[in-house]
Formats: sequence, structure tokens, C-alpha cells
Amino acid sequence: MKGIKDTGYIREFDPRMATEKITTFIKNYMDNAGFSRAVIGLSGGLDSATCAFVVARAIGSENVSLINMPYRASSPESREDAELVAKSLGIELDILDITDPVDAFFEHRSRPDRLRLGNACARMRMIALYDIAAEKDALVVATGNKSERYLGYTTLWGDMAGAYAPIGDLFKTDEKALAAFLGVPDKLINKTPTADLWADQTDEGEMGITYQNADRIIHMIYEQNMTPREVTESGESQDDVDTVITRYRASRFKTRLPVYPSLAD
Amino acid sequence: MKGIKDTGYIREFDPRMATEKITTFIKNYMDNAGFSRAVIGLSGGLDSATCAFVVARAIGSENVSLINMPYRASSPESREDAELVAKSLGIELDILDITDPVDAFFEHRSRPDRLRLGNACARMRMIALYDIAAEKDALVVATGNKSERYLGYTTLWGDMAGAYAPIGDLFKTDEKALAAFLGVPDKLINKTPTADLWADQTDEGEMGITYQNADRIIHMIYEQNMTPREVTESGESQDDVDTVITRYRASRFKTRLPVYPSLAD
Repeated sequence: MKGIKDTGYIREFDPRMATEKITTFIKNYMDNAGFSRAVIGLSGGLDSATCAFVVARAIGSENVSLINMPYRASSPESREDAELVAKSLGIELDILDITDPVDAFFEHRSRPDRLRLGNACARMRMIALYDIAAEKDALVVATGNKSERYLGYTTLWGDMAGAYAPIGDLFKTDEKALAAFLGVPDKLINKTPTADLWADQTDEGEMGITYQNADRIIHMIYEQNMTPREVTESGESQDDVDTVITRYRASRFKTRLPVYPSLAD
Repeated sequence: MKGIKDTGYIREFDPRMATEKITTFIKNYMDNAGFSRAVIGLSGGLDSATCAFVVARAIGSENVSLINMPYRASSPESREDAELVAKSLGIELDILDITDPVDAFFEHRSRPDRLRLGNACARMRMIALYDIAAEKDALVVATGNKSERYLGYTTLWGDMAGAYAPIGDLFKTDEKALAAFLGVPDKLINKTPTADLWADQTDEGEMGITYQNADRIIHMIYEQNMTPREVTESGESQDDVDTVITRYRASRFKTRLPVYPSLAD
């Protein structure tokens, strides 16, 4: 990777240590909250697969509910991959098709573009996860990672929702190492990341930057406090640096609860 | 009110000052975010009516969209009251019935109790508000107040959602004074608070405490750092103090974004 030696960008990711920290966190969180069960929306992608594996490791497969929630436009392959993950964990995969409620919603609304449709789908899945959690006395697991958080690649009150996010401090690039360590099937580790909101959508295509480049730049700017200039001088492209900074700034509202004016004197 | 002189519980609420602070906050927030329009879900209750009045005062009625989103079980009177508020502001009220998508959702789920149904309705309204906001290039206004926040009387990722909450630092008891100052119709100010999730539901009946008692106790315990014992000795009932503390503790998860384990050393 370019830039590494010049910029001091040296992060060693230890999947064993990360697994230990994450599973301890999950166990403590659930103990404190008084819950023994968790529910995870399994999209067929790597994020939710990795979360399923690490949560199952922490609290036992028998305490994990997995649900795949396709919309009409979702790829059949996504469902197959979700099945593969569930099977690997010995958990039965529940399926809840969200096409009917989403379509019923838009019947009374203007015709949505794909972004509005994608956001409504992500939020409908949140409704389903919380409803299932209420039924099963379980906590909802959020499946977002650190790259998505910095790049704002998430739907507010949609896929970002949950009690805790096991891989919330993991870059997408590190996630693969964790997934491999946990035993997530290779097929999931090697597939192209996609939110599966429409055909041929890919995260990297939509964002206009690869995770590998984005993760390196995020780390330098937001974790090592390097200036954008230092980052480009280290060998990163100006376009990539601009993409990261623009996306970061434009999506800060997704990382905050509603703010309110203080009336204290 | 009992207890006031003994406990130093003296808060003067000045609606003129509050209006000034809140409208300044709203203008600054929207300027900084680069939005000129706001959308508010008008339930027919006092919270959303007060928010509509104060937001209209801050950014102009012409920049405010108001939407009433009844479910099958919603009271017709709620809609009439929402109409009254919109008319008072000279804004046309949009109506979006959420019955079809909510019922379509539960067609594929187990029969919900009224709490699950109420939460799904609150979240469906969030989907609608954000979809309308995307369409109109507007920000969603959250309508929660301080009493609800402390008592956890809100649906997570539902009615708590929004960019900002104009009355988020206002007790329900103070809200009436603000509403009167702003010109909210008396009918709204004097009606019994209800989430209108089922017939005859009232906030106070469901929580088992009046807002007047709850607000006083919240202020003493959480803002003046009095011990529960000091609060009961000041004249509050043990039951009321227990209700506030129990509700507060049980609902902290509603005031936080998903947490995640840090992988930093």
C-alpha cells in the first residue's frame, strides 16, 4: 500500500485480540441490559455475517435469531448467502419479505427515486427487527462498521439502528481479517460489498472510492490528525482525499441524536 | 404545589425568553445545515402543535410542511385538532394514512399487542417524515419534550427522530405556557395528553403519574441532584418518586445511539 512508510500509517490488526474485546463487550452489554437473546438482520453481506458470527460466539448460537428481509429488488444471491451464513452457525434463518409494506407505503406517496426507496427499505427492516426483538425479548444488533460511519454510508434510523454495533470500530479492510478468523464462509469475505438496493449496486461504485483507499485516508486524517495536504503528499490522490472529507462532513448528522436548544440560563 | 418552599424547587419559566432562545436555535441550525424548509408530523396533540408554532415563527409558515398521519385506530378528533393548528398557522395540512403499510407489515408477522403496534406506527410515521423531507429538501423536526425524554415516553427511532427537537428542553408543564404565548389554540393546550395509539389512552394513565408530579420530581432528582429520600421528605409520594426513577433507568437506552466496543489499545 502506498504511503505507508512515509506517513507512519502502521496499524496492526489482530483478529484474535479484536474477537476477545468484542465478545467481552457483547457479554457485558447484554448482562447489564438484562437480555440473553439478540436478533440480527442478515442481508447476505459481510457486515451482518461477521456480526452474526461474533455475537453467536459471545452468547451462543442458540440465543441468536437471524432474519433475512428481502425487498422485491433484492438479489436472490443475497438470500442464498444469508442462508449459507445461518447454516454455518447452525441457526435457522427466518425470512420476512418487506415488499408488501414498502409498496403499500409508496402507494400513497410520490414515485420514489432509488435513494428514497432504499432508505424506506432500510427503515422498514428496522421496524421489523425491533418488532421481532419485542416478540422474542431480544436486543437488536446494529451491523455498521467504522468505514461506513466515517463515510456516512448508512441510513439514519435504518441500518444504523440497534442496541450495540459489534464491528462499529472496525474498518472494512480489517473486517475481512476478523471474518476469516471467526470462520465466516470465504464466499462472503470475497464478495463485492453492496447495499443491494438495486441491481449492480456496489458500495465502492456508489461512493466513488475503494474501501482500501478510504480506510487509509480516514485513519490518517481522523485518527492520526494529519492535514489533507500531508495525506496527499504521502501519495493519496486528491480526488480520494476530497471524497472522504466531503462525505465525512456531509454525513455528520447521521451520527447524532436530535439536538435541542438548552433553556438553562 | 407541595414541596416547593422546602426543597428550593423554584423554576421560573419565561415563555418570551424561551421563544427567543428556541427560534434563534432553529434559525442557526437550519442556516448551518443549509436547509430552509422543515416538515413536522402534526398528531393533533400539544407537542407537535407547539413545535409547529415555534418553527413557523422561526423560519416562516411558508417554509413549514405539516402532515397528519392517522392509523386506523387514531381518533378522528386528533385529525380535527391537527387541522385546527394548521389553519391557525395558515398552512395546508397534508394527510397520509399509514394504515395500509402498517397492516401490510403485520400481515407477515405475529399478531401484535398494542405496544408493538404503537411502536410500528410511530416508526412508520418516521419513514414518512423522512421520505417527505427528501422530496421537499426539508429537515424533519422532532417533537419530543423534556418530560418524555426523562420518562422514556417515546418510541426509539420513531417519534424521537428528527434533526432537532425545538421543545426538547421543556417540561410538559412549561410547554403549556409556551404554547399559550405562541398562540396555540386553547383547545390543544387544555386537552389531555395522549399518544393516541388506542382508544382512551392517556400519557398519565399509562405512566401512572401526572406530568405535574413527574416534572417536579425529575427536576429535583436529575437537575438539582436531590436524593430520592430528600424528595419524599419534601412531600412527594414514594410511589411517584419510584415511578420516575424506574422509568428513567429503564429507558436510558432510548437516549443513546448504538454503542460499540473500542478496539484502540
